[in-house]
Amino acid sequence: MALRLRAPAVLPCDPACTVIRDGVIDVDDAGRIVHCGPFADAPPFDAPVRECTGILLPGLVNAHAHSPMTVLRGLGGDLPLMRWLHEAIWPAEARLSDVDIAAGMRLGAVEMLRAGVTTSVEMYFHPERLAEAVLEVGTRAVLASALIDAPGWDWRRMLAEINSWIDADGLRSGPGERIELAYGPHSAYTLPPEALTRVAEAARERGALVHTHVAESLGEDTAQRAEYGSVPLMLERLGVLGGRVLAAHAVQMSDEDIAVFARHGVGVAHCPASNAKLASGIARLADLRRSGVHIGLGTDGPASNDALDLLADARLAAMLARLSTQDSTALTASGALLLATRGGAEAASREDIGALEPGRWADVVHVDVDDLAFPAGVDVPDDQLLANLVWSAGSRTVRDVWVAGEQVLSDGEPSTVDIAKVRAEARAVTRRLA
Amino acid sequence: MALRLRAPAVLPCDPACTVIRDGVIDVDDAGRIVHCGPFADAPPFDAPVRECTGILLPGLVNAHAHSPMTVLRGLGGDLPLMRWLHEAIWPAEARLSDVDIAAGMRLGAVEMLRAGVTTSVEMYFHPERLAEAVLEVGTRAVLASALIDAPGWDWRRMLAEINSWIDADGLRSGPGERIELAYGPHSAYTLPPEALTRVAEAARERGALVHTHVAESLGEDTAQRAEYGSVPLMLERLGVLGGRVLAAHAVQMSDEDIAVFARHGVGVAHCPASNAKLASGIARLADLRRSGVHIGLGTDGPASNDALDLLADARLAAMLARLSTQDSTALTASGALLLATRGGAEAASREDIGALEPGRWADVVHVDVDDLAFPAGVDVPDDQLLANLVWSAGSRTVRDVWVAGEQVLSDGEPSTVDIAKVRAEARAVTRRLA
Repeated sequence: MALRLRAPAVLPCDPACTVIRDGVIDVDDAGRIVHCGPFADAPPFDAPVRECTGILLPGLVNAHAHSPMTVLRGLGGDLPLMRWLHEAIWPAEARLSDVDIAAGMRLGAVEMLRAGVTTSVEMYFHPERLAEAVLEVGTRAVLASALIDAPGWDWRRMLAEINSWIDADGLRSGPGERIELAYGPHSAYTLPPEALTRVAEAARERGALVHTHVAESLGEDTAQRAEYGSVPLMLERLGVLGGRVLAAHAVQMSDEDIAVFARHGVGVAHCPASNAKLASGIARLADLRRSGVHIGLGTDGPASNDALDLLADARLAAMLARLSTQDSTALTASGALLLATRGGAEAASREDIGALEPGRWADVVHVDVDDLAFPAGVDVPDDQLLANLVWSAGSRTVRDVWVAGEQVLSDGEPSTVDIAKVRAEARAVTRRLA
Repeated sequence: MALRLRAPAVLPCDPACTVIRDGVIDVDDAGRIVHCGPFADAPPFDAPVRECTGILLPGLVNAHAHSPMTVLRGLGGDLPLMRWLHEAIWPAEARLSDVDIAAGMRLGAVEMLRAGVTTSVEMYFHPERLAEAVLEVGTRAVLASALIDAPGWDWRRMLAEINSWIDADGLRSGPGERIELAYGPHSAYTLPPEALTRVAEAARERGALVHTHVAESLGEDTAQRAEYGSVPLMLERLGVLGGRVLAAHAVQMSDEDIAVFARHGVGVAHCPASNAKLASGIARLADLRRSGVHIGLGTDGPASNDALDLLADARLAAMLARLSTQDSTALTASGALLLATRGGAEAASREDIGALEPGRWADVVHVDVDDLAFPAGVDVPDDQLLANLVWSAGSRTVRDVWVAGEQVLSDGEPSTVDIAKVRAEARAVTRRLA
């Protein structure tokens, strides 16, 4: 059903991060934006008007997540990294059934809506279950089905399954094309070179995204770095780059690695919170941006963050960019907001989300300015409004969310699922594994 | 009125960060804690019982703030530091009347209650107005009256005023001793050496705290460092150290500087968010802790943070400590929580707040665990509960707050002031200055 959203401030998240005062967003029957601009100049549009009192902005894009891990949040506390993985996380994950994973994904999707995140790039197992959960809650996801080479896991069989699934269902499906299927080869150090090459070939044939972990920490890929110099160089040599590739983390990158990514149009999902919590390091955001690499923001899994709060991570990204360059202008509030919206879409090579522009899906967030974070509501200059949003407000002010023009969060509560039921199902899993 | 608080989990914030399951806090008529422990072992206590459903912990201690600056939040956006100060912040501050400052302080105090902060160490002007605002909202504050040497400001007159005020009203006053008066010499680079010495003498005579900015950024104290080697060495030489001294920031510190602080029992207010936003650097938290320096957490002013959210800053402190040491155990969830509570009290040399122990004031926060941050409520192991609290929940889950046994926040709303009026008064100031 067509819809006009009107608000005293609209942030389309164009490259200049314009603030439109008294703006409208017109949405057609299919859920796509047909117009976004000042009310005064808007062409006539025959649709019900929803008057919003705060700020409208595009739904945020979480460029790297393992959202089903909501059920493992906080597990193992602050054990040292290797003990945490071996003694807490991996044993628990081995006990997760496909039903548990769906329960965790539903909870994660609700949490993301409340944080204004409408799209997440998910790397996890049982993508068919993830798709069900995402469609139930009404978010949007790129489901990068995980591939690893380990006892009990056969990457050839996994690859064949993804291929068949894409060939049967198509790359995008669901109402408002909410589901995109993708390939999730875990990393260079958990798969043989042949697997990486074969996955990339299959993805390129189908125009699909390859989503993989790259250079997260120094300890992880010693053998690969010794043989190829670095994982980016390895991926280039194996022919993995060239199609749609989204690299998560990209912390331990040389100048040459950055140049390789820029040359091949590889997107990066910058995960500042996870990288900080696990002491992996600070990605070279300023250098990556300067080189033209498309960069989005990822939360990573809620066991290593431990939130799915992308606005908090945008703020953190600005802080870490400033600390690592000793320059308080290294990433501004508007720059951080663009990373969490338009940047995420670009990093995942998607042109249909991440901004309020004609032709894109009407994935829209309504932020309430009736909050102490906004000392004068919207009645401040543009730069102050953006500062209030990014530096002070964070996700607690998210009130309403639409995905493809459908309202899926209303006054902070999901419109689609029974939140008590979602929480009860997840709670049972958490209690069993705690 | 005496009171027993009971909850499924109580965190007294003892040095081991114990989690008491089914615990009680018994509060006497004066508002002091008489017992804290498991319900099963508690001695009989004749008082009404308030049953809480979540976690009880001590009110947080914000060890460095300029809270009246809530009305300047976001002003100047992301201008480079020196332009931001000269073109936005200082001109606006020059236009703040004492009434404006009170309006900003009231708003800041409400915001802090909602974030679980019961005590703040405030460095600002017009302490008599700050005291009124703090008592109105019902928080607790150490009011370090600012002293600077600048045109129109006479440090000798300011010092004489503080002395008379303390001599007339006493060091601590108000219901539940909510107000403590203190000396706030701004910094070594904004005051002549004589002023620092004279202020320290006056404070020592009265047992009062000296709160001052130290080594926040490299640009600020070139002349002082050239003459004395460093500001800590300068303060030692001038006889400023030895009494109760709380240094804000302490970012640019040598090993020798740290040793000076440890030797003289100087407390540090670590301000990770402000230091990151302004690109000042990362304080050497691990080294400061190892040397035995008492460390608390400060938000700094809401124009340079831009929040008064101490739990968010505890999480950030853990992240930065881990990044700067490349050690994911450098600061745990419990360690971060202790910084924000007990540590802040120790840094301000206060033994009557910051922990739930007999004899201390009953400054208590009730955190609601009916939130997605707690996937299984309190039904998880202790380390997981602490991780959920610090890494995921943050301040949005703060529901109720007591100060000296008096409830001042109830289900997220202040019990003492009309929040609409507080916001309207602050809004008028923000609009005038925007």
